[in-house]
Amino acid sequence: MLIGKQSWRFTNTPVILSTGVSGGPFEKNGKLAEDFDILHDDLWMEKDTYELAHQLLLEEAIQKALEKGNASEQDIQFLLAGDLINQITPTSFAARTAGVPYFGLFGACSTSMEGLALSAFIVNYGGAKKVLTGASSHHAAVERQFRYPTEYGGQKPPTAQWTITGAGVALIGSSFENKGIYPRVVSATIGKVIDMGLSDPLNMGGAMAPAAVDTIMAHFKDTGLAPNDYDLIVTGDLGKIGRDTAFDLLTQNGIKIEKEHFQDCGLMIYKEEQPVFAGGSGAGCSATVFYGHLLNQMKKGKYKRLLIVATGALLSPLSYQQGQSIPCIAHAVAVEYIH
Amino acid sequence: MLIGKQSWRFTNTPVILSTGVSGGPFEKNGKLAEDFDILHDDLWMEKDTYELAHQLLLEEAIQKALEKGNASEQDIQFLLAGDLINQITPTSFAARTAGVPYFGLFGACSTSMEGLALSAFIVNYGGAKKVLTGASSHHAAVERQFRYPTEYGGQKPPTAQWTITGAGVALIGSSFENKGIYPRVVSATIGKVIDMGLSDPLNMGGAMAPAAVDTIMAHFKDTGLAPNDYDLIVTGDLGKIGRDTAFDLLTQNGIKIEKEHFQDCGLMIYKEEQPVFAGGSGAGCSATVFYGHLLNQMKKGKYKRLLIVATGALLSPLSYQQGQSIPCIAHAVAVEYIH
Repeated sequence: MLIGKQSWRFTNTPVILSTGVSGGPFEKNGKLAEDFDILHDDLWMEKDTYELAHQLLLEEAIQKALEKGNASEQDIQFLLAGDLINQITPTSFAARTAGVPYFGLFGACSTSMEGLALSAFIVNYGGAKKVLTGASSHHAAVERQFRYPTEYGGQKPPTAQWTITGAGVALIGSSFENKGIYPRVVSATIGKVIDMGLSDPLNMGGAMAPAAVDTIMAHFKDTGLAPNDYDLIVTGDLGKIGRDTAFDLLTQNGIKIEKEHFQDCGLMIYKEEQPVFAGGSGAGCSATVFYGHLLNQMKKGKYKRLLIVATGALLSPLSYQQGQSIPCIAHAVAVEYIH
Repeated sequence: MLIGKQSWRFTNTPVILSTGVSGGPFEKNGKLAEDFDILHDDLWMEKDTYELAHQLLLEEAIQKALEKGNASEQDIQFLLAGDLINQITPTSFAARTAGVPYFGLFGACSTSMEGLALSAFIVNYGGAKKVLTGASSHHAAVERQFRYPTEYGGQKPPTAQWTITGAGVALIGSSFENKGIYPRVVSATIGKVIDMGLSDPLNMGGAMAPAAVDTIMAHFKDTGLAPNDYDLIVTGDLGKIGRDTAFDLLTQNGIKIEKEHFQDCGLMIYKEEQPVFAGGSGAGCSATVFYGHLLNQMKKGKYKRLLIVATGALLSPLSYQQGQSIPCIAHAVAVEYIH
């Protein structure tokens, strides 16, 4: 049901039955390697193109989620997913492989929570018994498209972020039809496009921070909750600069939050010594960190209530070249796991 | 509620409160010019880029839908929309203008019905009081991106289609909260990705036809209805070749349907003498023809029950260049207007 202006509360408790998380070599050397189900040693993954490797990551994550959820494609009504590649072809080709009715989404790096919010809504009201939702990115495919082919060796400023290679997929079902204790999708807040006029595609964290803040404030207003109601508020891929900016903006707006309770997936995924500039990013960033690491932490009892705020920069190389600023968005989903 | 494998029935009757339809010069000279709310004399629309003109079309259609529905942006919970341009920037920039919480969709030319199906589901279950949904395309922006800049004068085979310039937007609300008689969104069938191995981007109608047939057959199976339950079944943009192919495939599969009851938006929008090869296409095609012409025909009493089957080719220029075939999809929405 709609609460406030732009949020949903899921009173029939849709749950995350299982997840599948795949990654590449940089993630294999990263801080969260143990939280991935599948890790590849090289970016090509024995495919002829990076885009086919990208598609493979999503296919593998889908298979893992199905396998861990004791389900097959025939049990699934819908797949809701997207990526950053033009016309989201890796996702659409993976949807062809899955053979499941498919809603293509585009929310850039916010796609993970756009998909989870819609999936939870659909399952909550019996529009499906089970759905798959997810997001993915591939470093070399995305770099080539948005910036330069990596072989070119273009230099980057410290504000730049490192597109992660990985896919995160969740199998969502109803708690009524699935016995057991699962992470519950409690509420969601859908973001507006926020554009503060920033236009540097090598500082996307800074551009996205106001969108994250707008959605977090809307979430608290709509739900009547406060930061202390969550054990952790975690943004998608703001990176160092964006996280600091968002923290300052929240403080300026009277939202009191302890800094250690305000984390960012892009700052969690890699080791300190990995050369990722301001942190990880990409549509797979929040998807892999949340569906992998954070849910594992919840299972271990470290967190009971999380607010995941996936942030997206909705620019294109063309819109940047045409002098447009960067329109940004963030979608928040609250997940509770009490066992 | 879910019916069958991949369909929804909307028992709380979400309704189309109003629509807004904008178009370009080719549409102004077309067969359905009277059904557009706004028509432009040239493709630039006094903007500096075709992409900004594309954005304007959607902004105008949103404004018209709001105006005709006696609503303002503040009354709207969500916008669900998309287009064909890389990273759907025209839609995201228009969402920035509207300032409404936004779900970005990518379904190529099937986006119109992907958005209507999701919007109807959300409104049906009280996830929003009012939502806006729509799709758009701009001939020159899309041609440049998918094929060649039009100035290049590249020749096309007769199987090619003509991307329409236009946007179609609908304001969806609940029949409980809106007195009056409106077109009702009755059911929807979400399509799978169907790929028969065709790879010619200048014959998309042929590639998309099997996806349309798959969704139409799933719709009849899930709902228990037959072609005669609809006054018209109208596909999105199959064009001459795709429509004939789809008709033959349906007949081969035992679906009896009179040919005049099986039409295509891409074959309705232009005059016979306009040089559009096999017909119109583009994300705006089914959106403008359905939200404009077909709803007007329903208001006049010509049709009571329509099944709109928006078809999409989910390729990208890159996936084509890399030798991939064309993954296709179709989403069907049934609309009833009895007054």
